[in-house]
Amino acid sequence: MKTKDLGEFELIAKLQSKLKHQSSQILKSIGDDCSVFKPNKDVHLIATCDALVETVHFDLKTISPELLGQKTMAVNLSDIAAMGGIPKFALVTLGVSPNLPPKFLDKFYSGMNMASEKYGFSIVGGDTVRSPKHFFVNVALMGEAQKNCWFSRDGAKPGDKIFVTGSLGDSALGLKILQSPKKLNGPLKTQKYLIARHQNPTPRLEEACFLVKFDAQVTAAIDVSDGLIQDLRHILKTSGVGAKIYENSVPTSLELAKICKANNLAKRPLIFSGGEDYELLFTLRPENAKNLVSRFFKRGMPLAEIGEITSQTGKILLETNNGKIEDGSCFKGYNHF
Amino acid sequence: MKTKDLGEFELIAKLQSKLKHQSSQILKSIGDDCSVFKPNKDVHLIATCDALVETVHFDLKTISPELLGQKTMAVNLSDIAAMGGIPKFALVTLGVSPNLPPKFLDKFYSGMNMASEKYGFSIVGGDTVRSPKHFFVNVALMGEAQKNCWFSRDGAKPGDKIFVTGSLGDSALGLKILQSPKKLNGPLKTQKYLIARHQNPTPRLEEACFLVKFDAQVTAAIDVSDGLIQDLRHILKTSGVGAKIYENSVPTSLELAKICKANNLAKRPLIFSGGEDYELLFTLRPENAKNLVSRFFKRGMPLAEIGEITSQTGKILLETNNGKIEDGSCFKGYNHF
Repeated sequence: MKTKDLGEFELIAKLQSKLKHQSSQILKSIGDDCSVFKPNKDVHLIATCDALVETVHFDLKTISPELLGQKTMAVNLSDIAAMGGIPKFALVTLGVSPNLPPKFLDKFYSGMNMASEKYGFSIVGGDTVRSPKHFFVNVALMGEAQKNCWFSRDGAKPGDKIFVTGSLGDSALGLKILQSPKKLNGPLKTQKYLIARHQNPTPRLEEACFLVKFDAQVTAAIDVSDGLIQDLRHILKTSGVGAKIYENSVPTSLELAKICKANNLAKRPLIFSGGEDYELLFTLRPENAKNLVSRFFKRGMPLAEIGEITSQTGKILLETNNGKIEDGSCFKGYNHF
Repeated sequence: MKTKDLGEFELIAKLQSKLKHQSSQILKSIGDDCSVFKPNKDVHLIATCDALVETVHFDLKTISPELLGQKTMAVNLSDIAAMGGIPKFALVTLGVSPNLPPKFLDKFYSGMNMASEKYGFSIVGGDTVRSPKHFFVNVALMGEAQKNCWFSRDGAKPGDKIFVTGSLGDSALGLKILQSPKKLNGPLKTQKYLIARHQNPTPRLEEACFLVKFDAQVTAAIDVSDGLIQDLRHILKTSGVGAKIYENSVPTSLELAKICKANNLAKRPLIFSGGEDYELLFTLRPENAKNLVSRFFKRGMPLAEIGEITSQTGKILLETNNGKIEDGSCFKGYNHF
């Protein structure tokens, strides 16, 4: 059976039955003209949206529908994390090509549902439309942030320390493995790890929540989606500052090192402009930066101090592994066109 | 110049400069990971989303980009009206085909901007992605409704009176004119009116706002997007009731009558299952229904009482122009697949 054999409302009812997590703040969910939500007291509302398009952002031959559902949510959750917020509810728009098997949508919803249960938000509505050729999905995700406690990109000041969670470049290398016409050298298990980092990224909500609770007074934050240098550039531009990055402090995985070595691949383009890392990049006053890395590590949350903010607006200096100073602006990020 | 010659961020900056209306409730707009919004006191938040896809929902050969931008907003605003809410802020996702001229997007944004100024909401963010073949747009629209004062579909009770705003079938006939391979008979001006009703529908926000202020105690409401009978069916199903509709009370325009007559077209399919009317369909207790039509007319807002709610769950009876009773369930609505 194809999706076109199911009616629109039957399809919606089928998908709706998949969704389990519904918070008590939701007064009206799927099945009305709008969903209705009761905000908590003393919060600001935050909202983001991200779309993924078949053949542009994913290839249905290499990613399972469950993982695609999870990833669709993860890229949006990552934006909520970058504001220091808590995800609350989502609207999902599906552009369904008529020949897509309904089983695909079933599994896709299972993936979204897993994310909703894991991160405690509710899927409360959306739209299901026909797309003539390619499947696409758009998620609008709403969350709450404590009044005057949310992060933005524009507050970095000279002297601030720069931090990043997790490790960089894994996702870009995972994608390279998937897209490589011939098999890459190196252990299969290591390659699978890198592919998983691309297909199943971790939104850094826990880390963001810790920064808010710990009152770390983040001066600027962004999630690394288009590559470290590109996203750092956004902070620098909006804050009117520059940065110095210590290359040997930038966190990378052993898996990345292993596969790069086995295939004679350059690490730097992956690490600096790979994209889709979905790690949290943020800045703090130096006095608030003390012991932060060890506090994070105690909670099993990887964090690295990778540089500091300077006063040279827009300038990115890169102190390389051999102590040279380079201009970091040669590293471009992902351009959607 | 094609869109693909512009970078992503250049495109976003260009589009952003088009947007003017920003309310004081918006604390952070386009240019961060999320937008930030300060809700008013004692409100519930309502949210909806609707996507339009090239060749499925519109044909770029027959609608101007400005009107398409306005219509994209109108279909979402209509959902806010159906809840008795006030629109506040929108996230816009564009799926841009690489060959689309940037001038198209400029004009499309002008159209969205006109709607935002007219109806007092702000466009605060979104996503811009590449779409391999067809242009698409998704709008997630958030609004506020007074606590316990919003409308839903599930409260209609036997004896309630059924109302609809405006006139029905114009939009479907407008579409028929656009899609007809040969020119239809009848005055060009009349045909243009009907096309405008299809391409530039009026979201019934003012009417919904009046119902809330007037404390009309709406028991159920929906916007007519898939056809009168189909949308009425949603109210009946969720409320567990039936309905009787008086055909000669269903409001239609003189323009529709004129073009139907000139071309020997049946009016009933247009009126009962045409779709895209974006009129407000709602029910009230009979004691609250008194004088409502004349109160609306005094304010220049067209309203008609078209029937009443019965206890026969799911049953739609149609009292025809010649006094016969028919089964109304033969009228189907729009199915997206």
